[in-house]
Formats: sequence, C-alpha cells, structure tokens
Amino acid sequence: MSTKVQEQTGTGATPEQLGIGMRFSIHPHCDDFVDVILGALTDAEAAGLTEGLVIETDEVSTYVGARAEPAEQRLVAYLAAVIAAASRRSGGGHVVAHVLFSRGCQGEVLCDLSTIGLPSPAPVQFEPTGLRAAVQWSLYPLLDGDSDAGGHMAHIEAAVASARRRGTAAAPAHYATKITGDLADVLSTAVDAWARVGAHVMHVVTHLTVTVGSPSPANTGGRMDRA
Amino acid sequence: MSTKVQEQTGTGATPEQLGIGMRFSIHPHCDDFVDVILGALTDAEAAGLTEGLVIETDEVSTYVGARAEPAEQRLVAYLAAVIAAASRRSGGGHVVAHVLFSRGCQGEVLCDLSTIGLPSPAPVQFEPTGLRAAVQWSLYPLLDGDSDAGGHMAHIEAAVASARRRGTAAAPAHYATKITGDLADVLSTAVDAWARVGAHVMHVVTHLTVTVGSPSPANTGGRMDRA
Repeated sequence: MSTKVQEQTGTGATPEQLGIGMRFSIHPHCDDFVDVILGALTDAEAAGLTEGLVIETDEVSTYVGARAEPAEQRLVAYLAAVIAAASRRSGGGHVVAHVLFSRGCQGEVLCDLSTIGLPSPAPVQFEPTGLRAAVQWSLYPLLDGDSDAGGHMAHIEAAVASARRRGTAAAPAHYATKITGDLADVLSTAVDAWARVGAHVMHVVTHLTVTVGSPSPANTGGRMDRA
Repeated sequence: MSTKVQEQTGTGATPEQLGIGMRFSIHPHCDDFVDVILGALTDAEAAGLTEGLVIETDEVSTYVGARAEPAEQRLVAYLAAVIAAASRRSGGGHVVAHVLFSRGCQGEVLCDLSTIGLPSPAPVQFEPTGLRAAVQWSLYPLLDGDSDAGGHMAHIEAAVASARRRGTAAAPAHYATKITGDLADVLSTAVDAWARVGAHVMHVVTHLTVTVGSPSPANTGGRMDRA
C-alpha cells in the first residue's frame, strides 16, 4: 500500500471509497442512561439526519459511515444532534461523547486510494447549538515512509494554528489540544482540520472527547451566554 | 525531528524523557457519578497505586504521567484499579473509560529522542480482576517519512495478531479492533502492543474505549464466570 497520492479537488471517489466515517459512544451520567441514549438516537433520526449514513451499533460504540456527499457535513450534523438531544433529555446533565473520525482504510480492510486522488471537501456549516462544549482533541496523520506529505507534527501544528485563527479557544494539554466553545464550533473546528489533512495524507484519524454539562470548575453550566 | 532511532534495551532514558503516560476519563452511568468517580480515585490512591505517577485533572480528562519504572505497569495498574473501583462503587453498573496512552513527544512540546534510543519494556503483569470488559482499540504508529520502521499498517496488523495469539478475543470493526476478556487481560494486551511498537517507532499512541457492565446484548452481565 502506498500513501503516495496526488492532491486534487473534484475527485470522483465516493465517501465509501474514501472510507469516511466515524465511531462514537455517548455517555449520559444518569440512572436512566439507556432511555436518554435511545431517545437521542431516535430524535436525530426523526430530524432526518441519518440520511446518507449507514449506522451499526455494537456493545462498545456505534459506527457511522458516510454514503453520500457532503460526507463530513452529514457526520457532524448527526453527531451534534445526538449530543444535543442527550443533553436535553438528561435535563442539561453531564454528557460525554467519545468520537473517532477516520478517512482512508484501516484495520483489516485493504484499500488502494492511490489511484483515486484525495478530495478537498468544503468546510462544514451549521448553526450554533447554544450548548457549550469542552473537547479533548487529538489528530493522527498516518504517514508511511513518504516524506512528501510532511512530518506528522507539521500537520498537527497547522491544525492547532487554524483552530486559534478560527476563534475556537485552543490550549495545549499533554497528548491533546483542548478546545472550548459552542458545540457546533468545536466539532466543526476538529472535523475541518481532519478533512484538510485528508487532502494530503491518505489515512488520517482524529479523536475527540466531547463534554457538555460538566460539573467541573471550568464549566459555566452547560449553556453558553451567547447574547 | 527525526524518527530514525535504534532499537535497544536498557536505554538510560527516563519515562519522563520518553513521554510515557496516558490521558483518561471515566464515565459511570448513574446519578451519583461525581461520588463514584472521586471515590474510585481515592481508592486507587489509598491502594498505593499513584506512586511514581503525576496526575493532573482538567475539565475533560485526567493526565497521568509515568515518572518511575516500570512505567507501563504503573499506568495499567492504576487505570485498572480506578475502573474496578468505579464499577464496584456503582454497584456493578455501566462504566466506560476512555483512555489514550502515548509515548514520544506530541502536541506543542518538542523533543529529540533520537539520541536516547528506545526501550523494549517487559510485558505488564497483573492478576485477573474478575471483571469482564469489552474494548474498542485503535493503535497509531506516527511515522515521519522514515520507512525503516515499516508501514503503519504492518505494526497494527502485528499487534492484532499478537492479541489473537494471547487468547484475548479480537475481532475487526470499522476503524478499530474489538477485544473482550478480563479487564486485566484486555488492558495488558493493548498496552503491551503499544509498548512493543514503541521499540521501533518513537511516537505511538493507542486509544481504548473500555466498557464494563454494559446492558447491551453482547455483555453477559459485567462479571465473568472464571471457574
């Protein structure tokens, strides 16, 4: 497998060929967590946000694969809706989601994207949710002995700089960057950065731990004052 | 920064120089989650398991840095104790931990380990906990245009093969491998594989979503029959 790919836009590859998707779990910290989770998933489906996605749940987490463009937009809109619904259904309580976004092949599936070319997707766009989130964010460009794409730290540093320019509060932490702001802004920041690296590196993964309604001191209560 | 390093054992580098540590969050799915989490952390400290570690908690998660050998053993023993205590304190309820183990520099910290040499730590060793866990596991060898260390998929495939040989049930999933078994076995499997890659690749990260006491069908009730 080669990571030697040409940057291009307007590739004819489908989101499925590009392996664009996510795997997430959601954790309401309350006794009725099963009802909250199932209700949140139902809410997002009722809002039509599962369109163009395939969704498979197992014991640990849920896989969501994009099957139609705009792939990144569909994934983020669905994820944000599930988190917001879980927060609402738990009465603004503490809800954490862990999310892995991936593009390129991984695990035991072989693929060869070198003949397809990599896309440069448009940034995701969606309305603020009014929900403050604090996120632990890690980005992993998975290079394979091909220095044309640059070192992995250069991609990570560019992503963090972009988050700063965007106005999402970004602070370094051991092994991660912390970003805070409206749930829509922090998810968009991380997903756009991941997609941007994906224009240069075939296989790139980003992990987010998203917390809303945390009782910890740095959190002002879950809902932001957006006035 | 170069990833060109020599494999060797008995390096004189400290765990701090090697950047060995983890970042984790723990999620009891119950109304009294704050008491469960704080109690679990206290239990692990009272058992002497914080020795040789530095621990810093922020709004999203907790950083644990190893400051004494055996680094991997200390991290895993502490983590397993916190998860087991949270499970016990929540009456065997649903508890999820998300954990990132990292070695090598990352984020905004510069380092040059190329002059130090990489260690080959001994496998971690600890007693079965009696607690069944299902884990979503991802491994990220972060190479930088240095093909001497092999492609990233080769390292991942070797790690999965090793998990199979070890007897930890391992099954491929989109973007991750699922491993199930006693909490001690699954954590050891993932951490040993991560440390083994670290003998060849300077910067390597592994992510685990660890679930115990899940109400989902694949779970038989949290506690294994070990008879």
